[in-house]
Amino acid sequence: MEQRVLDTILDRVRDRLEHNDLAGAIDIIERLYPPDQADILSELEPDQQEALLTQLETEQAADILEELEDEEAAEIAARLPLETLSDIVDEMETDEAADLLGDMEPEQASEVLARMRDADDVRPLLLHKDETAGGLMTSEFLALRERMTVRQALEAVRQWSPEKEEAVHYLFIVDNQDRLQGIVSLYELIKAGPDQRLGEIMSTDVISVPAEADQEQCAHLMRRYDLYALPVVDAGNHLIGVITVDDIVDVIVDEQSEDMERFGGSLPLDKPYLDTSVFQVARKRMGWLFLLFVADTFTGTVLRHFEHELAAVVALSFFIPLLIGTGGNAGSQTTSTIIRGLATGEIRIRDALRVFWHEARVGFSLGLMMGAAAFIRAITWDPSHPLLAIAVGTAAVAIVFWANCLGSLLPIIAARLKIDPAIVSGPFMATMVDATGLYIYFRIAKAILGI
Amino acid sequence: MEQRVLDTILDRVRDRLEHNDLAGAIDIIERLYPPDQADILSELEPDQQEALLTQLETEQAADILEELEDEEAAEIAARLPLETLSDIVDEMETDEAADLLGDMEPEQASEVLARMRDADDVRPLLLHKDETAGGLMTSEFLALRERMTVRQALEAVRQWSPEKEEAVHYLFIVDNQDRLQGIVSLYELIKAGPDQRLGEIMSTDVISVPAEADQEQCAHLMRRYDLYALPVVDAGNHLIGVITVDDIVDVIVDEQSEDMERFGGSLPLDKPYLDTSVFQVARKRMGWLFLLFVADTFTGTVLRHFEHELAAVVALSFFIPLLIGTGGNAGSQTTSTIIRGLATGEIRIRDALRVFWHEARVGFSLGLMMGAAAFIRAITWDPSHPLLAIAVGTAAVAIVFWANCLGSLLPIIAARLKIDPAIVSGPFMATMVDATGLYIYFRIAKAILGI
Repeated sequence: MEQRVLDTILDRVRDRLEHNDLAGAIDIIERLYPPDQADILSELEPDQQEALLTQLETEQAADILEELEDEEAAEIAARLPLETLSDIVDEMETDEAADLLGDMEPEQASEVLARMRDADDVRPLLLHKDETAGGLMTSEFLALRERMTVRQALEAVRQWSPEKEEAVHYLFIVDNQDRLQGIVSLYELIKAGPDQRLGEIMSTDVISVPAEADQEQCAHLMRRYDLYALPVVDAGNHLIGVITVDDIVDVIVDEQSEDMERFGGSLPLDKPYLDTSVFQVARKRMGWLFLLFVADTFTGTVLRHFEHELAAVVALSFFIPLLIGTGGNAGSQTTSTIIRGLATGEIRIRDALRVFWHEARVGFSLGLMMGAAAFIRAITWDPSHPLLAIAVGTAAVAIVFWANCLGSLLPIIAARLKIDPAIVSGPFMATMVDATGLYIYFRIAKAILGI
Repeated sequence: MEQRVLDTILDRVRDRLEHNDLAGAIDIIERLYPPDQADILSELEPDQQEALLTQLETEQAADILEELEDEEAAEIAARLPLETLSDIVDEMETDEAADLLGDMEPEQASEVLARMRDADDVRPLLLHKDETAGGLMTSEFLALRERMTVRQALEAVRQWSPEKEEAVHYLFIVDNQDRLQGIVSLYELIKAGPDQRLGEIMSTDVISVPAEADQEQCAHLMRRYDLYALPVVDAGNHLIGVITVDDIVDVIVDEQSEDMERFGGSLPLDKPYLDTSVFQVARKRMGWLFLLFVADTFTGTVLRHFEHELAAVVALSFFIPLLIGTGGNAGSQTTSTIIRGLATGEIRIRDALRVFWHEARVGFSLGLMMGAAAFIRAITWDPSHPLLAIAVGTAAVAIVFWANCLGSLLPIIAARLKIDPAIVSGPFMATMVDATGLYIYFRIAKAILGI
């Protein structure tokens, strides 16, 4: 829904609430999709949120809590009466319920669990870390036996009432010890003859993951093989949960946000930007900013080391920001491409040498171009000093070449060390190239100018 | 599949082919999933590719072509005999077939179309631009009437044989002029009584998009509302195609790759990195590198402007890279967060002022911290020169504050002008802060040192 439309609706809801017309407000909200309902709710005052969630149909309140950001949902939930909250959580999808309970105070969470009908479905999900397959999966799936007929399976589907109906795409076939044997899509079920057995029509080459698998790996598999659901199994191949594609879409977007923020030179935020306090935003950036500052103090050391040369040819200093800036830019270009290639799987760790050779040539070509530009800039700046221009041009070639080589290797080395390659951020590269680029510049200038 | 396993399989396939054992090679390949088959094929020699695609079952050859990168698929297709190629394209999903034909030489494409059975399904798809809803949609969907009973609908599903069975999740309900009325999921169809009419059980609040909608908008809708398929309609609300969630996952990843490369300071590559020639990679980066170089030449102008001050206090120059480097880092941190927020919808253009106010405070806090660090660095460097240290520290506060303010506004201004905010890249920010940061530094130094 368009933001403008939502804003108008929000105004109307507020208006009703201010006139104590709760029923009127509910009337408006009920007609929206859950994500829009959640957007409206999160803009309201705490007491209004409470009133609405308590008065809405339990199922709708559950949908809204599912759609809110995790931390916000936990905050609002903490203020609801225990009875109401338990009823609402009971209606939530099991994976979302587990996420919410995990974000609440342990005491409150266990009181809610004690009151829930579906506590047994949710409890096992609480054992898994958030960013793993186990943390993503739902325990809502229909597992049937090979010997069952299609007619019986259709009947089983009719008897079944999952919270998240719109995500049901496959049935899972297990043996008598719940070990995963195959899957059948609803489409295949409809196509099959009523007396066929599930064992005959199921696909047996099922892609599954262990509960500990990283969410990024799950996303990669689901994307590569166009999966609508990914079964999660334990060490004995027992089916313990299912990851649905809509949840994976959110994972992909979140992982990308993390990469982008890391690449920008900060730690990823845990909440939407505008919900994150100034202090928290600053805290996420402070570490890298300071670390890079410390690393960058070496530039002063390099400069002091070449103090004599600087004093001899003051004009050398005019080109410092230009040369190290260009080197940093070239490094950032390289590393962003490599980081992204690693994230999508286009580049693998074992491609390191190929990538290096590729970038070395790219760096040399771009270096030549920038060297020519730098030479022209320097010679037009001071035509009486051709040697200076030659030094500046040569330094540009060398620095861009160096930046590309470094930028091609560092992310792959990080990946090899199981560190997120995105930490080789633009600022990181710029800082690496600052001191080293200065050193290259002055060595070359010394040699060419004979100072 | 693990890369190592795939490599072993590739070796075995190559071995068979070198011993002219085509059947043996096919035997190995047939047991793989299509994405893995495509990976193997793309590593083989052109004549081996041709031989395999011609000898494989048409349906499998079609699956492989679907999985190959667009340009590679077009290259390989161009070498196949027209007869074989037409048969293969006939078996492809209609949206993939349209993409392939769009990438081929127009002459060859029309010859293929002339020989295809399903040409009429594919032709309309060729009219739409690649990165729009029309370019993404498939014409393979089952559209039924409201008055139809569930029993009849189930029968219609049984009669229907789409190429991409695994993506069938919904049926679409249209009126007698093909205008979209509602959707029914297969799950709902199974749950319903056989004599119920589709009109009774369908959901009527269907989210749909026009064919011209940008793919990013489609992705945003499907993610927000957890959709498994998104119907595409024309101006008269006639259903003309459907976008499936697996295709949207690829769009999300591609858009993010583009953002990341833009943010790194280059134009996005069109092909996987290692398939892109050195010349092409260099060409994608050259423009920005050169433009930023030109912008950065202003640093020289600023430095020359303050030549007198530099000569008076040579130590001023030691802190230049440190100060402008830190400013660039702070700017890059800010802009990456804002760009990402804009991409995910967390930040909207109308939030500009709130974002600015947020960042101004973040920038001031971080500035104070970096100012203290810079002061300490300068005073320990040369304890006899406290005024210099005060100037360096004050400049750090001002530059970081300035970088954050700039970094918060530029991406939103770009978005307002309908330019991809990711062009406000790290290198772009670093360059912006170079000359302006120098200017701030020298103005402050002049005032404090009285030079």
